[in-house]
Amino acid sequence: MSVAMICAAATSAWADEGQWQPYQLPQLKSELKKIGIAIPAEKLADLSKHPMSAIVSLGGCSASFVSSAGLVVTNHHCAYGAIQRNSSPEHNYIENGFLAKTRAEELPGGPNTLVYVTDKVENVTARVLKNVTPAMTGKQRHDAVEKAIKVLIAECESDKAYRCSVPAFHRGLEYYRIRQMMIRDVRLVYAPADMIGNFGGDIDNYEWPRQGGDYSFLRAYVGKDGRPADPSPDNVPYQSKDFLVVSAAGLKNGDPVLLAGYPGRTSRYKLPSEVRAARDVTFPQRVAEIQADLDVIAASTKGSPANEVRYASVAKSLNNVMKKAQGLSDGFARKDIAAIKDAQDAEFRAWYAKQPGKSPQLLAELDSVIAADIALSDEEFGHGVAFTSDLLKSATTLVRLANEGAKPDAEREVGYQQRDQNMIRARLNRLEQSYVAGVDQARFTAALQRYAKLPKSLHVQGLDALLPAPDAVAALYANTELGDTAKRVGWMGKDAAAVKASNDAFLQLALKLDGVTQSLKDRRAELDGNLERVIPQYMAAVIAWKKSQGKPVYPDANSTLRVTYGTVAPYSPADGITKGPFTTVEGIVQKHTGKDPFNAPQKLLDAIKAKRYGQFKDPVLGTVPVDFLTSADTTGGNSGSAVMNRKGELIGLNFDSTYESITKDWYFDTEITRAIHMDIRYMLWIMTEVDHADNLLQEMTIKYPTKAAK
Amino acid sequence: MSVAMICAAATSAWADEGQWQPYQLPQLKSELKKIGIAIPAEKLADLSKHPMSAIVSLGGCSASFVSSAGLVVTNHHCAYGAIQRNSSPEHNYIENGFLAKTRAEELPGGPNTLVYVTDKVENVTARVLKNVTPAMTGKQRHDAVEKAIKVLIAECESDKAYRCSVPAFHRGLEYYRIRQMMIRDVRLVYAPADMIGNFGGDIDNYEWPRQGGDYSFLRAYVGKDGRPADPSPDNVPYQSKDFLVVSAAGLKNGDPVLLAGYPGRTSRYKLPSEVRAARDVTFPQRVAEIQADLDVIAASTKGSPANEVRYASVAKSLNNVMKKAQGLSDGFARKDIAAIKDAQDAEFRAWYAKQPGKSPQLLAELDSVIAADIALSDEEFGHGVAFTSDLLKSATTLVRLANEGAKPDAEREVGYQQRDQNMIRARLNRLEQSYVAGVDQARFTAALQRYAKLPKSLHVQGLDALLPAPDAVAALYANTELGDTAKRVGWMGKDAAAVKASNDAFLQLALKLDGVTQSLKDRRAELDGNLERVIPQYMAAVIAWKKSQGKPVYPDANSTLRVTYGTVAPYSPADGITKGPFTTVEGIVQKHTGKDPFNAPQKLLDAIKAKRYGQFKDPVLGTVPVDFLTSADTTGGNSGSAVMNRKGELIGLNFDSTYESITKDWYFDTEITRAIHMDIRYMLWIMTEVDHADNLLQEMTIKYPTKAAK
Repeated sequence: MSVAMICAAATSAWADEGQWQPYQLPQLKSELKKIGIAIPAEKLADLSKHPMSAIVSLGGCSASFVSSAGLVVTNHHCAYGAIQRNSSPEHNYIENGFLAKTRAEELPGGPNTLVYVTDKVENVTARVLKNVTPAMTGKQRHDAVEKAIKVLIAECESDKAYRCSVPAFHRGLEYYRIRQMMIRDVRLVYAPADMIGNFGGDIDNYEWPRQGGDYSFLRAYVGKDGRPADPSPDNVPYQSKDFLVVSAAGLKNGDPVLLAGYPGRTSRYKLPSEVRAARDVTFPQRVAEIQADLDVIAASTKGSPANEVRYASVAKSLNNVMKKAQGLSDGFARKDIAAIKDAQDAEFRAWYAKQPGKSPQLLAELDSVIAADIALSDEEFGHGVAFTSDLLKSATTLVRLANEGAKPDAEREVGYQQRDQNMIRARLNRLEQSYVAGVDQARFTAALQRYAKLPKSLHVQGLDALLPAPDAVAALYANTELGDTAKRVGWMGKDAAAVKASNDAFLQLALKLDGVTQSLKDRRAELDGNLERVIPQYMAAVIAWKKSQGKPVYPDANSTLRVTYGTVAPYSPADGITKGPFTTVEGIVQKHTGKDPFNAPQKLLDAIKAKRYGQFKDPVLGTVPVDFLTSADTTGGNSGSAVMNRKGELIGLNFDSTYESITKDWYFDTEITRAIHMDIRYMLWIMTEVDHADNLLQEMTIKYPTKAAK
Repeated sequence: MSVAMICAAATSAWADEGQWQPYQLPQLKSELKKIGIAIPAEKLADLSKHPMSAIVSLGGCSASFVSSAGLVVTNHHCAYGAIQRNSSPEHNYIENGFLAKTRAEELPGGPNTLVYVTDKVENVTARVLKNVTPAMTGKQRHDAVEKAIKVLIAECESDKAYRCSVPAFHRGLEYYRIRQMMIRDVRLVYAPADMIGNFGGDIDNYEWPRQGGDYSFLRAYVGKDGRPADPSPDNVPYQSKDFLVVSAAGLKNGDPVLLAGYPGRTSRYKLPSEVRAARDVTFPQRVAEIQADLDVIAASTKGSPANEVRYASVAKSLNNVMKKAQGLSDGFARKDIAAIKDAQDAEFRAWYAKQPGKSPQLLAELDSVIAADIALSDEEFGHGVAFTSDLLKSATTLVRLANEGAKPDAEREVGYQQRDQNMIRARLNRLEQSYVAGVDQARFTAALQRYAKLPKSLHVQGLDALLPAPDAVAALYANTELGDTAKRVGWMGKDAAAVKASNDAFLQLALKLDGVTQSLKDRRAELDGNLERVIPQYMAAVIAWKKSQGKPVYPDANSTLRVTYGTVAPYSPADGITKGPFTTVEGIVQKHTGKDPFNAPQKLLDAIKAKRYGQFKDPVLGTVPVDFLTSADTTGGNSGSAVMNRKGELIGLNFDSTYESITKDWYFDTEITRAIHMDIRYMLWIMTEVDHADNLLQEMTIKYPTKAAK
């Protein structure tokens, strides 16, 4: 691809901040029109209408229906669990990919592969806050809110087909009850080879240039009555109300995109003091801590390939968290975000001081609860370090479960109710795959040594005296049976007296530490209650301030359905360099080394070398595009999100963002923030020229480019 | 700078291969017109006319006159010697820069700062080849050619104002006698601070993005009679016949450029076998050898800052050669240039086989002399390894000088004639600055050990038995006085008998090795004679072949005046990344660390931060450009070359090329080859806003952008 082509048709980038609740879109009518979105904002706001009715969640990932028979497209990494559980040395679906040529060949996705279809969103703020009074302590307020939410959820989940939640928006300014149909028979339909879906692997994670074919297909099955049902051969494909049309007509630099999905968590409304605490303490400490733990894992698994494999996914996940923390640190070093926040904060405070209805003590209260939050977060970090042991975490869960089990279900701590039992059991079982006693012991020993050396402010009140000495750790592992999965899971359902009577060293340690942990949680509840009281008032003022400037305000991401928009756009990571907006299949050949993670399948390389581009050749690039960048506003949870063109047709799948963009969770820098999407033409090309997934190509509604457009 | 700006106005890149002899330009009329060059090709071909009459050589670097009073602009690194010799701890002109506010303040450039003005180029092929007969051996032919050239030079240099040369073109198809007026009173006028001129230093050498302000000003002085004269306060500025007008109007992506200068050496017409030998043996061996020598230098200077300083420039130069060799290796690995050459070679041979006038044995002879050349080059490389000692090299020179001194001047070996005495003396003197006995001894010892381990084919016939054993090296250094500069230089002019009678260990070693070295030279002369006989016939056939396709052929670079053209253009080093075409002053702030080589002067940083862009703000970039990329065809020796716009106005100075371009000396890859130039607007901006060089701004003829253009 020549540079002229990369730069051809460059237009100004619209880096568009905002993860909007669908109902807010009509407020953005003129912006949407300006970048060229053709769907009326009112239609986009209606979850029962196209295209939003085709957008689903997988719980942690996003996805969309692409046929009327429950066919779902998402990222390869979002379907990885389903691929892995069906993979064996004989049928290595990870390495070779998998394609069900008929529905009968589709494979069970397993209990963790779920499709959530949001079908109702209600503002329940009044009901949540009904029993809250100004006189309440933080803990009382927090408990009152939690109690009200539990009632709202239980009411909603009385129909077992649904999973419901009542997340707070703007930290409690509003609460919405979200009802999702939870489809629990989800099957694996098609996954490309790992070295297509995960080409570049961890090395390319958060990086550009990128050539990931990060897509997979699942299918949602329901009972014959059309309602969610346990997996069964009698189930039938879910008749999806709606699905996205796939457009192979392509897109070019400067084109507008819409992106819908379930972003997890952002921190866009932090105060300058919080930015400084994160920059100076949280992220550096987190990076140092994870690196130290990774070093221990590496040293203690070295020489045993079996143990290395067991900890590979643990290390992968720690590396991912660390790279993100490092990216945030680097981003804060690159740009003085605290100073930018200082300026915004000063501007806001000046405005607020002039408001007639202002609360005289709000800002002082705000500063005070935020300072308390920073201090408590430090202790929580320290708590995490001291608890770097999978056995201790399991034991703590079992102790909690036994204690909470004595209470009526509605009064139990969130996470330990009846509705949580399956998740807990799955987690206790799953540890089997990533636990080695010697490694856990080494991690715990080293973590206790590190905890001892942490700055005073990061130590947990009352904890230090109760922790075992590092040299006493070996004895704990010699006197526990929790490493045995059956025995570990067997403790579920036992009561507090049984736990107390046990002579298991880890259960006894967890019991001993439980008081401090619960006290930390109580202090968190007290503080959260105060935060939930103060921050909504602050956010209401911020929203009023922004409204006075004619700007709508979106809430921080909270794993609920959001819409963002932007344009296809390159970016400049440094003076004299431009990255993106497209990569091409030729980039795969450039990066191919024959070694994981740059080991493209031969059939793919052959198709590229033969230039069998078919109808997926981009007229500007002269070849098949692979990935592209846009200015859309995304974060973790947006993996698998549908990227749509101006007409709402599927033209890409979101799967990552660039390293320089990581800071966007705290501050959206329009110049530098870019999300990484897979171009749907690459997927269609693989399906057509490489994997011959003709049955799926037939099932989807695909608009191919007209001759003229080519 | 936003990406939109980088990409704005992108047009297709014209990567234009060809370092043309000026007389060839009329053959390229339509190409020049196509990219937009407004100067008639015939005018460009005339060395006595503007703009070529303003282009000069500094001997190894290129430059141009920019006023009628002998003011010369070139690269900072080309004027470095002049800056360095005037610099002292009290007047640190390297660190702080230097500006003569009046002519009286201009400083002597020293004996190595020379300006060569080419004023006559004659085709002397017939005279060179007059005495050559088909029956001659290679050595006889080579000697006959050398003898004829000596006569031609002596004749031309009868006027002491001139330095003449008779370089071969196409390895002897043509010979031109080039007469250059050699101006030997050249003064330092203005140099920016090192951290402007050399910003990025060795780290950024061959790299992009680049923010080098690589410019300096010299002034040529002559006697009152207008002829070159020894440095004297009585001298007057040279009245340059012509000079370049400077354009501050700027240029943008896609604009055409002309570049004129003295490229040193290219190897564009190598056969596939030569490419393979270079790729598989020459470059890998060279990289390994230099790295090993650098390691020895580092180890043996470590702990002594004084010795480190003495070897800093040696290491710098070795690093530069190594980076170039590594770049060639990497380039050969990136693209199968041998395969491309195979295809071209096969095409040529097929064409040649059909020619009626073809020589039946030419191609077999060609293959045979090339194979011999590859084998002999291997021995020459081995010779270089064995002679890794500055004392041995000095001793060898002295032995040669003494032996050649016995002959009449015209019969002496090239390089040891009367005309070479000053150069030799300067070299023997200059060693003082970069010699430490212990370091030289360590290098020589280690090199002898490496030589012993080289593959058999790299050993020099007859040499091994004569070399000292590595453990005998210490004794050589204990028994030599050549480390003393006065004594070393004192040997100049002594005769062969005196050298023979000396008990200096290095002179004796050089005497002992002289026979093998001379025999290697004789074999080279024999082979060169054969190459000079065969290759011109081959090149004549290649030229005829290209002519049959309507394409002119330029000769490999040979340090003579050449013209190339191209366009301002970015490039893509990898799928999904674009580099260039511009960097900006903001990039200096991005890279500034406060530590060498990224330690920009505060006054520069202040001007950037205050956005004091003045009239040098580029309308597309929105700031002051620093460096830019073009597709022009350059190589070493083009440093300081004038980069001109379509009207022949100076808009930049060439100073480097990108790492990916290094392979261009062997193969010009239009997609990837880019030269790095300094934008003249950056120089003018520094002169205006930072260094206040008003006197020079006044002296030059500068065309500022009109308001409309801004």
